[in-house]
Amino acid sequence: MKYYAGIDLGGTNIAGAIIDENNKFICHKSVKTLSERGFDAIVNDIATLVSNMIIESGIADVESIGIGSPGAVKDGSVLFSGNLKWRNAPLADMVQELTGKQTYLANDANCAALGEYIANKTDKSVALITIGTGVGFGFIKDNKIFAGDTYGGAELGHQMFKFGGERCTCGKNGCIEAYASFSALLRDANRYVEKNKKSYLASIKKQAGILDGEMIFAAAIAGDIGAKDLTNQFIEYIALAITSIIDVLDPALVIIGGGICKSEHYFMPILKEYVAKNVFCTDAGIAQIKVATLGNFAGILGAAKLHQYI
Amino acid sequence: MKYYAGIDLGGTNIAGAIIDENNKFICHKSVKTLSERGFDAIVNDIATLVSNMIIESGIADVESIGIGSPGAVKDGSVLFSGNLKWRNAPLADMVQELTGKQTYLANDANCAALGEYIANKTDKSVALITIGTGVGFGFIKDNKIFAGDTYGGAELGHQMFKFGGERCTCGKNGCIEAYASFSALLRDANRYVEKNKKSYLASIKKQAGILDGEMIFAAAIAGDIGAKDLTNQFIEYIALAITSIIDVLDPALVIIGGGICKSEHYFMPILKEYVAKNVFCTDAGIAQIKVATLGNFAGILGAAKLHQYI
Repeated sequence: MKYYAGIDLGGTNIAGAIIDENNKFICHKSVKTLSERGFDAIVNDIATLVSNMIIESGIADVESIGIGSPGAVKDGSVLFSGNLKWRNAPLADMVQELTGKQTYLANDANCAALGEYIANKTDKSVALITIGTGVGFGFIKDNKIFAGDTYGGAELGHQMFKFGGERCTCGKNGCIEAYASFSALLRDANRYVEKNKKSYLASIKKQAGILDGEMIFAAAIAGDIGAKDLTNQFIEYIALAITSIIDVLDPALVIIGGGICKSEHYFMPILKEYVAKNVFCTDAGIAQIKVATLGNFAGILGAAKLHQYI
Repeated sequence: MKYYAGIDLGGTNIAGAIIDENNKFICHKSVKTLSERGFDAIVNDIATLVSNMIIESGIADVESIGIGSPGAVKDGSVLFSGNLKWRNAPLADMVQELTGKQTYLANDANCAALGEYIANKTDKSVALITIGTGVGFGFIKDNKIFAGDTYGGAELGHQMFKFGGERCTCGKNGCIEAYASFSALLRDANRYVEKNKKSYLASIKKQAGILDGEMIFAAAIAGDIGAKDLTNQFIEYIALAITSIIDVLDPALVIIGGGICKSEHYFMPILKEYVAKNVFCTDAGIAQIKVATLGNFAGILGAAKLHQYI
């Protein structure tokens, strides 16, 4: 049996696993990222995490290491990551030097897309859109991570969505991420509560101190009109982002990941209706749309299998 | 020497050429489309056009026929074309039956992208965006026309660009085509003239009876402030459409086609600045941007060479 290490390097945690050649998870460990410690400390932690997992799982060794990192990634380096505050960080080379293991690197959303692609046992093209604080995107085509010519591509969140619209965290205005992310939903919900101080959402916010996406979806599912309007608008934004993906990339399968998956039964029928109404061509059918099944493990599985797919 | 026939089926003309294996144009002919005559008449005209070109050029025969058609195209059929008012039209099969020649079919913008790709003698990925009455798009990657899983993909014009914005010809609101097309520029210019009846553009419109894109660009180049504002905004819209392409597909080369190419020296520096300001990642360089060089011949050349690239 052959074994592979997969690492999902996030802003909060470095999560890793050893996976066997049948994609079975053998061992799973994580440590805090504490990214302010800088590049060298994180490289060390990744190497240590891998050797600890090898010891703990009692296997002889791993064939290779794969890492999913936030930011733009090319040729084994993190070109830049706002999250980690890195620029031109030679992550794969450094981990390989420390561990002596062949090390692969890809963008974290691409790793998650690859994990879901593997879990779906398909050879058709698969797009993953993750709806979280931001909007993540990954695309698998022809049994490989889709890779552009300069920095890698498959970046969706900062496409123009509403010219002249809301300020985005990237500094531009009107990006997809400024509409189809949970940060955007919370911005809109807090504005709604400001204007509707006697609303159900206002009372929930007062009790809990803050609003989060789960509360807003729960209120919508419970039938609150204000919450339904907010979530309906949010679902339309996500549907239009998916429409853009379908128009240009025309994947066989679109997978939605992130916290929104919990509300699948509520949002999916609404979302599918918006998508069907907006895509350019439905004459030959339309991409299947479903929610992610692997959760946080998708990125680790994809990273562990990078050796096959880049 | 081997010869190939390429056909660019447009709403107005059916333009064809015989091209030799070195991409040299041997013979060029066109006839009116008159699409209201329906599918069978057009199939006949394509077959006749090909045999007339063979006779006229004095070659023995062609190896294959390639057709670029408007609309969504899949497996040799035009799934639907608003322009030709066709749905599920088996164009390649019918032309093949009439001519006895292997016949290939692709979307016209993809054929034009392929023509420009061939003319650029590159093996990197190339995106073509054509700015005309509408916004056309084609994408060549891995030495092939990019093809999605259901209808083919690479449709850019009806992506959301300004949520809740201007009405598009497709019936939706806020599409890229409702901002980055010449129809959109003319809509905005006519509104400007309505509001500024003593402007330079108003006087030009009065003299000529109508405004067209070339007049507006000429006025901007001549220094008229109203025309400069209009073209500057238009160039920003096009730049943001190109930014969307670069973010997701990350091509090595973006080619701009259509009537706007005539104003290259005026618009290109402005456009490049907008693109550089808006793309997600420039750390590994950015796609080269240039104007199309083959004009209307790009689509014919691409069609003639489909046998190699689909």
